[in-house]
Amino acid sequence: MSERLDATTLLADLIRCPSVTPAEGGALALLDDVLTRAGFRVERPVFSEAGTPPVENLFATIGSGAPHFVFAGHTDVVPPGDMTHWAQPPFSGAVHDGHVWGRGAVDMKGGIAAFVAAVTDFLAARGGAPGTISLLVTGDEEGPAVNGTVKLLAFATERGHRFDAAIVGEPTNPVALGDAIKIGRRGSLSGTLTVHGRQGHVAYPHLADNPVPKLVKLVRRLTAEALDAGTEDFDPSNLEIVDLAVPSPAWNVIPAEARARFNIRFNALWTRDLLAAWLDSRLAEAAAGEISYELELETPSSEAFLTRSEALIGTLSAAIAAVTGRTPALSTSGGTSDARFIKDYCPVVEFGLVGKTMHQVDERAAIADLEALTAIYRRFLDLYFAA
Amino acid sequence: MSERLDATTLLADLIRCPSVTPAEGGALALLDDVLTRAGFRVERPVFSEAGTPPVENLFATIGSGAPHFVFAGHTDVVPPGDMTHWAQPPFSGAVHDGHVWGRGAVDMKGGIAAFVAAVTDFLAARGGAPGTISLLVTGDEEGPAVNGTVKLLAFATERGHRFDAAIVGEPTNPVALGDAIKIGRRGSLSGTLTVHGRQGHVAYPHLADNPVPKLVKLVRRLTAEALDAGTEDFDPSNLEIVDLAVPSPAWNVIPAEARARFNIRFNALWTRDLLAAWLDSRLAEAAAGEISYELELETPSSEAFLTRSEALIGTLSAAIAAVTGRTPALSTSGGTSDARFIKDYCPVVEFGLVGKTMHQVDERAAIADLEALTAIYRRFLDLYFAA
Repeated sequence: MSERLDATTLLADLIRCPSVTPAEGGALALLDDVLTRAGFRVERPVFSEAGTPPVENLFATIGSGAPHFVFAGHTDVVPPGDMTHWAQPPFSGAVHDGHVWGRGAVDMKGGIAAFVAAVTDFLAARGGAPGTISLLVTGDEEGPAVNGTVKLLAFATERGHRFDAAIVGEPTNPVALGDAIKIGRRGSLSGTLTVHGRQGHVAYPHLADNPVPKLVKLVRRLTAEALDAGTEDFDPSNLEIVDLAVPSPAWNVIPAEARARFNIRFNALWTRDLLAAWLDSRLAEAAAGEISYELELETPSSEAFLTRSEALIGTLSAAIAAVTGRTPALSTSGGTSDARFIKDYCPVVEFGLVGKTMHQVDERAAIADLEALTAIYRRFLDLYFAA
Repeated sequence: MSERLDATTLLADLIRCPSVTPAEGGALALLDDVLTRAGFRVERPVFSEAGTPPVENLFATIGSGAPHFVFAGHTDVVPPGDMTHWAQPPFSGAVHDGHVWGRGAVDMKGGIAAFVAAVTDFLAARGGAPGTISLLVTGDEEGPAVNGTVKLLAFATERGHRFDAAIVGEPTNPVALGDAIKIGRRGSLSGTLTVHGRQGHVAYPHLADNPVPKLVKLVRRLTAEALDAGTEDFDPSNLEIVDLAVPSPAWNVIPAEARARFNIRFNALWTRDLLAAWLDSRLAEAAAGEISYELELETPSSEAFLTRSEALIGTLSAAIAAVTGRTPALSTSGGTSDARFIKDYCPVVEFGLVGKTMHQVDERAAIADLEALTAIYRRFLDLYFAA
């Protein structure tokens, strides 16, 4: 490949591929083409599972031997919402006012575009890969995350790949590029609490048993106390009721059941099992043997994790400092990402663009940030493979 | 009209008219035909109002002068639900196993069929009406009740009609014909309580404000105490939460608002205004200035009422006792009916079939009950117009 790849152009091209989960939208085909021309061996496995749509994925690798660095990301994007609210059409990839506009610009086609620009430049400068460099790109991060990175990691492992370090290119910076590296994540556990009663007409309450006051009592107990106060590395855990519902509500009907759905984001003080025990004890106490309820915890949940690899964190921090002049915070805040799967294979951190506009109308990436991120990834590869 | 009208045949014919609110389904046309042939002057006004479907109604009258007795009812029915669960098709009017089967059999095409059979027989025996006899039949009782009895009463009043007594033919008997006359009703007031928060991602709770624990606190307060203990004539008032909801729920989103909907059935100790004040004081106390909420009370509500007319109650009780050998209880329990509108014009009571199967799958009327109810209405007319 002779011409130097430009992250802005590649990002605009990727945005024009309407890859709302689980649609591939042409995004992986585009990366396949670019990476193949840069010398990568590219595979495009499609994973499926009963009850979920099949999803396309991409695994690309170049070079051989250790160390083996892997960059991970996703080309799928969340839906654009009301298209008419966008200043630029969400799949236009418009370059305007110093930004590349569109759904996925920062989460995270921009991270992918910057890394592809960085790695092709690095390979050209070094005349090939010193060790092995791979890309894990999934189309199922914003969706159920069942037919994506989990299976792609198993796929690469079956082919003999052993990774030494990984960067996920998710947008990790709250305000400005260089703000923060994510070195871990809180875990997530969702559940549904259902209270059963007996349906009846509002005019005949003695023939019915309204489950709502009972559900409300249980919910009060679950939200009455904080789970913890946080740790040195982690924010406090939090339990949020995200939904209340009565199936088939009607003005004159005492409902047969009432439900609350919740999501817990938890730090390393907890595991799924510890939370299940905590929930059971609080609910049993509030029910006092007088409320019939069911608690269903969703699978899969994700456990909290923390990466402590100086080789990875120190090298990435040095690259960020060299390009931006800033020392990134080492953060564990925010939502889950596919790093929760990769951490079982090798040390993993996350660093990408500024997340301010992600999942919102008018998502856009500053061209200056794209160029700086490309330089950071480029510098990281230099430092990582200099060892 | 020469042949004697049979309530069972007329009911089966009425059931075959699929008159789910607001559809007329042919039911009023059938009554028009039967009553016209019996000598009634029949009018079929259609009422409408912005935001509600137009509804057909029927007003039939015969005779002149006092006393003026009016029978009130509705031909509209609630939907049949899952048709495949019915032992007989819900609009077949099948006569099987000693019953007439179908939606509306007891609520309340059966009551209408029995009264029409009774009144035509009475008119034939007396050679005309001693005084005035009218029928108010609406197609909007099970629906919003906006284009039905309220407007039909005004319609009749404008034409100079003044009623002296009314019977509504709703199914009032819990188990056996003769169990109960309804001499009043509790009132009904519905409302929506909305608590506003600030939407955000579950992973960033400090940027959001979850309204659910706040709503739950307010709902706990509203359901913490009984409204009253009932009166000699009335059951206790009850407040039921009939729905809990979070608009646009998602597993990872702290919602922007949460809502509870409730319905209060209240006795003569309360009015709408007293309840509004009670709600305001309880909510303000629980909110303690720290919860932002909105309370919206629905219009129209209906106030509680009690009829005390010995001429009406005593005469109907005597007719019931003569036919069934039973002394009916004087009840105010149960839901609202169009009697709440008629009570502003004249003394009104309710008496009809056995309600056990109303609004359910396999709604059906026993032929023996239809014949007994016809005899009761017939005897009532004799006694009422004997005075």
